[in-house]
Amino acid sequence: DYSEEVMEHFTNPRNVGEIENASGVGTVGNAKCGDIMRIYLDVDDNQIIRDCKFKTFGCGAAVATSSMATEMIKGKSIQEALKLTNKAVMEALGGLPPVKVHCSLLAEEAVHAALWDYAQKH
Amino acid sequence: DYSEEVMEHFTNPRNVGEIENASGVGTVGNAKCGDIMRIYLDVDDNQIIRDCKFKTFGCGAAVATSSMATEMIKGKSIQEALKLTNKAVMEALGGLPPVKVHCSLLAEEAVHAALWDYAQKH
Ligand code: FES
Repeated sequence: DYSEEVMEHFTNPRNVGEIENASGVGTVGNAKCGDIMRIYLDVDDNQIIRDCKFKTFGCGAAVATSSMATEMIKGKSIQEALKLTNKAVMEALGGLPPVKVHCSLLAEEAVHAALWDYAQKH
Repeated sequence: DYSEEVMEHFTNPRNVGEIENASGVGTVGNAKCGDIMRIYLDVDDNQIIRDCKFKTFGCGAAVATSSMATEMIKGKSIQEALKLTNKAVMEALGGLPPVKVHCSLLAEEAVHAALWDYAQKH
């Protein structure tokens, strides 16, 4: 069974969409279930994440963790965002069933890939 | 990569929701990925499926196949609905990648479980 926070972020996900001319884009795939996740960052001149959006074909757990993860890095510096862990996102969501932990990794990996993409371009 | 029909039913799914006092409800889980699906049927006195809704925690492939499956059984008799196969739903969607076939089975199994639930109650 899923926590209230998971159900809330699943049924009403934050930051779904794309960012045109994003400062950084990260796309990762999940070998276990074949799902895909993409995260877009809009980073300002002071290296603050002004906006952040995601798209995924993944399940409810992937949607909820991405929704929470994007909320957690918005307004943060890229240095702070790099410290975002899957564990912190899951804790903020009140936990996930063990079988769904691999889904939540998509969000962390996509954030890191997008930050890496930003770093390479700047 | 996904067909246009899959992306259309994923981004704009039909028949998402619940039916109060449904004639039949089917809930199934997917052992492979831990996802869950529920289908609600509203069947009239002539055994015609008047309405049909679904809820799932599953991925985009599960959403798209349920959306298509519910469209395919609405207005049908319960005898016709029992003949709905996963194969027919996937064909109507223009196919799915092999790694996602297990997701599409959720829809077929949930429809059958809901029809079985209806049959037991009537
Ligand atoms: S991966 Fe679970 S329903 Fe698709």
